[in-house]
Amino acid sequence: MPGAIEFFFDFSSPYGFVASTLIDQIAERHGREIEWRPFLIGAVYKEHGGVPLEHPLKREYAIKDFLRTGRFNGLTDMQLPANFPASPVPPSRVFYWIEGQDKAKAAEFAKAAYRKYWIDGRDTADPLVAVGVAQGLGYAPEDVMAGAQDDAVKGRLRQETGDAMARGVFGSPYIIVDEEPFWGGDRLAHLDRWLETGGF
Amino acid sequence: MPGAIEFFFDFSSPYGFVASTLIDQIAERHGREIEWRPFLIGAVYKEHGGVPLEHPLKREYAIKDFLRTGRFNGLTDMQLPANFPASPVPPSRVFYWIEGQDKAKAAEFAKAAYRKYWIDGRDTADPLVAVGVAQGLGYAPEDVMAGAQDDAVKGRLRQETGDAMARGVFGSPYIIVDEEPFWGGDRLAHLDRWLETGGF
Repeated sequence: MPGAIEFFFDFSSPYGFVASTLIDQIAERHGREIEWRPFLIGAVYKEHGGVPLEHPLKREYAIKDFLRTGRFNGLTDMQLPANFPASPVPPSRVFYWIEGQDKAKAAEFAKAAYRKYWIDGRDTADPLVAVGVAQGLGYAPEDVMAGAQDDAVKGRLRQETGDAMARGVFGSPYIIVDEEPFWGGDRLAHLDRWLETGGF
Repeated sequence: MPGAIEFFFDFSSPYGFVASTLIDQIAERHGREIEWRPFLIGAVYKEHGGVPLEHPLKREYAIKDFLRTGRFNGLTDMQLPANFPASPVPPSRVFYWIEGQDKAKAAEFAKAAYRKYWIDGRDTADPLVAVGVAQGLGYAPEDVMAGAQDDAVKGRLRQETGDAMARGVFGSPYIIVDEEPFWGGDRLAHLDRWLETGGF
């Protein structure tokens, strides 16, 4: 069986969100599984020193580009959340708590939490909002709340972030398949052709 | 007549090169002229503080991505020049000297100088190489050499770089059409749809 598409993303990442709406069909077309791997991009910026959007000019352009990229891909109702960039920690912990029980549900949670933030504009950094997304998938809020605060889950997120960085991940989304890396939602067409042709 | 596509680029820019091979057909499809606008990206980095590719990890990825992006767009013989990143000053000056006489020839020069660097791997930071490209377009080497050292041409390049920055340009390629900005060769599909639909 061919290797999975490793999809590294940060829950505050606009291009991660857009890619999350497109990656399933690419994976299906080529018979690949997706490993959803939320991590904390802030840890990367701390290590590499490259905080993005520092300059007002780039920030203004970036915000325009986020939404235009969404519209380009059919997400006409994508909006900039009021609290952008929100902490990705709460939804990431909920993700790994769910993943410990059910990988498919965790992938569903990832897509739903992204939509909650980038389409509905809700503050997914608020643990109650992240928990509410899980509730929508059938989990009892008190279980999710307790699970997300479990030391094992917290440690798991730290470990996943460290592992992503050890793999060379420095942005979101960052996709690795058959050891070939693709950084950015705008490389999905390259990924698609790579899977189609076996490398180019 | 609809406004021109302003194509801002730095002669050392790999994505500027790839875009230079694609922009003509987009412009033709939508009946737009192209204003070729070489500028010095180093001046932007000096102002904004954001030197790219500082981190070895990003540099390694970037170099892979340069050539993969080339291959994705049919440039199977694109290579990393030995002296990357080369100074863009000599070809930029030759460009503006030619442009003072013949805009269409200047556009031809831009594309030829880019190919000389990114396909043939020649050092276009060497004034003799830049002059050689102009010679291939019918200019006498001694005229080009003298023209490129003219104070008016030198001043023109400084002014164009300042003007680009005043317009908000912070990367290469950077395209503005009808006041809508598009940063990066990977936004050409967005530009194409923008021109097709009148904005989205």
